[in-house]
Amino acid sequence: MTDDPAPELDLDALRREGLLPAPGTETAAHDGTGRVELSFTVEDSGGAPPSHRAVRVPPGVTVFDSASWNGIAIDSTCGGHGTCHKCKVRVEGSTPISRHDVRTFSREQLDDGWRLACLLQATRDLQVAVPPLTTRPKAATVGVGRQVILRPAVQKRYVELDEPSLTDQRSDLQRLLDAIDDLEPRPDLHALRRLPTVLRQADHKVTAVVVDEALVDVEPGDTTDQRYAIAFDLGTTTVVATLLDLALGTPVAVASMLNRQQPFGGDVITRISATMMDPDALPRLQRAAADTLVELAAQVCKEGEVDPAQVYEVAVAGNATMTALVLGIDPEPLGMAPFVMVAAQPPSVLASEIGLELHPRARALFFPALGAYVGGDIVAGMLATGMDRDKRTRLFVDVGTNCEIVLSDGERILATAAPAGPAFEGGAIKCGMRAAEGAIEVVRLGGADDPVQLGVIGDVEPMGLCGSGLVDAVAELVRVGLLDASGRFVPDEQAPIVAPALADRLTRIGEERVFVLHRPHPEAGPEESVVLSQRDVRELQFAKAAISTGWTLLLEELGLEHRDVQQVLMAGSFGSYISPASAVRIGLVPTLPVLRIVSAGNVAGEGAKMALLSIRERAGAAALLEEVTYVELSDRTDFNDRFVEQLSF
Amino acid sequence: MTDDPAPELDLDALRREGLLPAPGTETAAHDGTGRVELSFTVEDSGGAPPSHRAVRVPPGVTVFDSASWNGIAIDSTCGGHGTCHKCKVRVEGSTPISRHDVRTFSREQLDDGWRLACLLQATRDLQVAVPPLTTRPKAATVGVGRQVILRPAVQKRYVELDEPSLTDQRSDLQRLLDAIDDLEPRPDLHALRRLPTVLRQADHKVTAVVVDEALVDVEPGDTTDQRYAIAFDLGTTTVVATLLDLALGTPVAVASMLNRQQPFGGDVITRISATMMDPDALPRLQRAAADTLVELAAQVCKEGEVDPAQVYEVAVAGNATMTALVLGIDPEPLGMAPFVMVAAQPPSVLASEIGLELHPRARALFFPALGAYVGGDIVAGMLATGMDRDKRTRLFVDVGTNCEIVLSDGERILATAAPAGPAFEGGAIKCGMRAAEGAIEVVRLGGADDPVQLGVIGDVEPMGLCGSGLVDAVAELVRVGLLDASGRFVPDEQAPIVAPALADRLTRIGEERVFVLHRPHPEAGPEESVVLSQRDVRELQFAKAAISTGWTLLLEELGLEHRDVQQVLMAGSFGSYISPASAVRIGLVPTLPVLRIVSAGNVAGEGAKMALLSIRERAGAAALLEEVTYVELSDRTDFNDRFVEQLSF
Repeated sequence: MTDDPAPELDLDALRREGLLPAPGTETAAHDGTGRVELSFTVEDSGGAPPSHRAVRVPPGVTVFDSASWNGIAIDSTCGGHGTCHKCKVRVEGSTPISRHDVRTFSREQLDDGWRLACLLQATRDLQVAVPPLTTRPKAATVGVGRQVILRPAVQKRYVELDEPSLTDQRSDLQRLLDAIDDLEPRPDLHALRRLPTVLRQADHKVTAVVVDEALVDVEPGDTTDQRYAIAFDLGTTTVVATLLDLALGTPVAVASMLNRQQPFGGDVITRISATMMDPDALPRLQRAAADTLVELAAQVCKEGEVDPAQVYEVAVAGNATMTALVLGIDPEPLGMAPFVMVAAQPPSVLASEIGLELHPRARALFFPALGAYVGGDIVAGMLATGMDRDKRTRLFVDVGTNCEIVLSDGERILATAAPAGPAFEGGAIKCGMRAAEGAIEVVRLGGADDPVQLGVIGDVEPMGLCGSGLVDAVAELVRVGLLDASGRFVPDEQAPIVAPALADRLTRIGEERVFVLHRPHPEAGPEESVVLSQRDVRELQFAKAAISTGWTLLLEELGLEHRDVQQVLMAGSFGSYISPASAVRIGLVPTLPVLRIVSAGNVAGEGAKMALLSIRERAGAAALLEEVTYVELSDRTDFNDRFVEQLSF
Repeated sequence: MTDDPAPELDLDALRREGLLPAPGTETAAHDGTGRVELSFTVEDSGGAPPSHRAVRVPPGVTVFDSASWNGIAIDSTCGGHGTCHKCKVRVEGSTPISRHDVRTFSREQLDDGWRLACLLQATRDLQVAVPPLTTRPKAATVGVGRQVILRPAVQKRYVELDEPSLTDQRSDLQRLLDAIDDLEPRPDLHALRRLPTVLRQADHKVTAVVVDEALVDVEPGDTTDQRYAIAFDLGTTTVVATLLDLALGTPVAVASMLNRQQPFGGDVITRISATMMDPDALPRLQRAAADTLVELAAQVCKEGEVDPAQVYEVAVAGNATMTALVLGIDPEPLGMAPFVMVAAQPPSVLASEIGLELHPRARALFFPALGAYVGGDIVAGMLATGMDRDKRTRLFVDVGTNCEIVLSDGERILATAAPAGPAFEGGAIKCGMRAAEGAIEVVRLGGADDPVQLGVIGDVEPMGLCGSGLVDAVAELVRVGLLDASGRFVPDEQAPIVAPALADRLTRIGEERVFVLHRPHPEAGPEESVVLSQRDVRELQFAKAAISTGWTLLLEELGLEHRDVQQVLMAGSFGSYISPASAVRIGLVPTLPVLRIVSAGNVAGEGAKMALLSIRERAGAAALLEEVTYVELSDRTDFNDRFVEQLSF
């Protein structure tokens, strides 16, 4: 009794004896490097030969999640909580037996390798046999070609209960829970308040509404078909809402509008500054965000003809600042070094706590963030693009004032943020404007008949240049030789030689050289025209250098070269519009065949939809926090050297 | 792959091989019968010889709880959540190894039987060695001689954190949680809103406030000594509040008042009826209960000079109707057969949801109920009296309009409710009144000098008869022979023979025979006097018969005789005042030596205090739900026969 127990042991010996559960059960136990391979053999219920599929996941992920994240369906109604006992698989070799396994399988079956997939963690390579499905699961395609097996947090169960009697005095709650024994929710007070009345008015034929672990309501009759959720992409500039039918997995209505926080400033830094100047600014910014969400929710519910009281959950994907502001959390530490978040994973709150009037107990889900400048919107985007579920080396770039960069080599994932400045949003650009009607978004130079071809949003008279037009213009000027590799316009005398049809457009406003993209009338001087100035080119150079320095350093961290990148995903409302050829030409992305550069669209919104459609995907988003290594650039001594190297085209 | 898994297995074989965890991990797995014995050997830190103690608990209870419930201290700071890794014990024989054991002990220590007590379930008799304590735990004596080791749900931790830097960008939350690693709370939004500001204003020297699983606040500086809670005994008639200092385990202030629901009726049935007549009655009853709690909370905080914002938790012990009403739940199903509760365990809510203005995230805890008429007040009472932790055969009787009866033989526990009617509260009694000033509460007959001795509340002129006076009067009249065993006054001609000094007091009002207890003046007729009527005796007979039928049937269920009962606990504001001798004489309780009949006092309030002082005791209250068998009397065919048998004295 006198030997003081000290923490030392032979883990491997314990594992060999089956005494030690999988290490993945311990939080943050694995170091994010190395994966295990699961080889699934999926039997077909129609009698076709079994199909085979190998997937790689971080150690500790359950077999159920590994399958689910890769679109491989395994029977389940509880969604992986160990309560429905349906996700039966057979694995080869010795694996731990959970107490639910003991309740589900015979001794012979346990010896034969049968286990519940949701409780079995993959800690080594496994061969997994999946029996034929007893019910065909619904799936939806969202994100970048991601197949999501529907298993929303919002579940409804219609039940017809026995009336209570003196020989069956179970409480109302117990009677209900006994009838939905694949779920084990805790009741909200709201649901308990409704339960006795609704049960008796509806002759004990009711629908239980469960969100995640909570029984939030009980509704008379069968309302199982009516369950909805709203995915919000809470952008600094634009906010998009998608109303989802959770029973079908399909979008019902979409609406977007400018974030009502705009009057406080166009980017996150100006909004953070506002809260530092004025103690009233935080509540006002919070209200502005709430008003935006409320208006969009009303729009999509109206358009979809859905009762807001049947919206039981919302997911919000936003950057760290937008997330803090809508939750009423002071964003100040995000705005200054050392750039600290209050919490990587915001708490799950009631939708009413962020101002939404949906079902009174609707939940609001926020995405976790990897850092102050790689926020929940990027985690949602990683989910939508499957950054953690692809063997290829892929680069994800969300271009904006703050540019988020994620690199995966199929084993490890790195993320960082690069301060690109406002150039891509039209800020600090002479004729810059947002991507709205009248903005030049496409530029082609040097055609025989028409040396300057412009694509203009709304097909109207060009009024200015948006981000993608800026990239195009610079890329084209480099291509035709009017800009040299250092980003300088060529001397006046050289212009007619390299580009005779365009030389007259290279002129000056005051001392500064400009290239005229569009004259409102033939005699218009450069001051009246839409032009690209030498300084604009410099702004874009700085922006692209910040970004390419970011991914160059990430490539170096993983010991990779440009040519190792197999796919580039351009994300965000701006990134999706950039011409891949132009992006390559100015060096914004590594030099790749353009077909490997994919416009990924609004991936944050897609990730929010995935989280609403599947609790497994939601768990996947949380797992990214463990798996992704955040690389801080602002204290890198080599950053400035690399930055200078990256300035040239 | 074609053999469909079916649930069959050899549990014992699996247990022998250590593959099967303890069955107690499964909800409601044991049937409530049979216990296991744990023999503790507790080493003394001062060098004294070890002490030995054997306790019996239901199978599946953890070793830590088994010790804690019996006042045996084991080191722990997390309170049994498996997070602090301090509750080290050594057990003999083979027992399962948890993953926390693996992280805490060396292989040799595991072989040697070292385990964490909080994760080891007692599924068979065990020998447990407890090492000397490294810190002396605080304990408090509450309830009926119960020693409670202090471990409140409300925990405070003072920490001095490193400032963040570019090389340490942990979020504010992570930084805080890393510093209090024996707890793993989830943050409330409220705490996250306060966190960045408080951390920076207080130079990162702060106190984290944790309630149960939630981080509810962060306070500047060291506030660890300031933590309070309020225990409410929410009676139908009287409500009592006790403000507790959780750091010391001592009461700071106590206050009581009549329940403000009184205008709706004196008992639970009239209040339930009120909600059935008038749709506004439920919110008004809810508000009346809330007002009562609010006023008492203000009183005890004022008297104890405690800031209400430092009250972080309240516990409410009330019967099922009071609990439903204060939560705003329709009580109607409680009021009519088949007497069904909405939920046995009310949800944990915020104190603000029941109207209290304490710390904004203070929690309100409610006791679970065993049935519509054996509510949370009785479960609290069972906790305070240790009904489940005593080897003796004990009978617990809470006397009132509804009388709750609990019987334990040290292995099994049965509970029931008997409708005693209003006699004990002075209702339906000719000169009945509540136990207030002027009420006769003690009656002694047949003294030589003074044949009628009365004890009167407030020592004033007697105005009526309260419940304990009623019991005394009848018991004394039986003893002196003026009432026969059937409850009839003896014939007039017989009275002078059996009790010459009292015979003149046996007279009539109209046709009804009455016994005059007190004449306001020597010539006063019986109409002007305080009397006990024949009909009063009948009322008491019915009330006592209901109660004694209740415990008689419970004794039969356990195969016991009256004489097997080793202790009777008389509880409740009324029960505590009944004379044990009189209770025995009229047959309200089994025939026992009076010293074995204990007035237990306000056990509901004591139970509420215990739940606030110790999360282990709280878990014990929840465990009672599994362990106690509720016996419904209203559908027993033998009830009426027994009732008639029990009518005589």
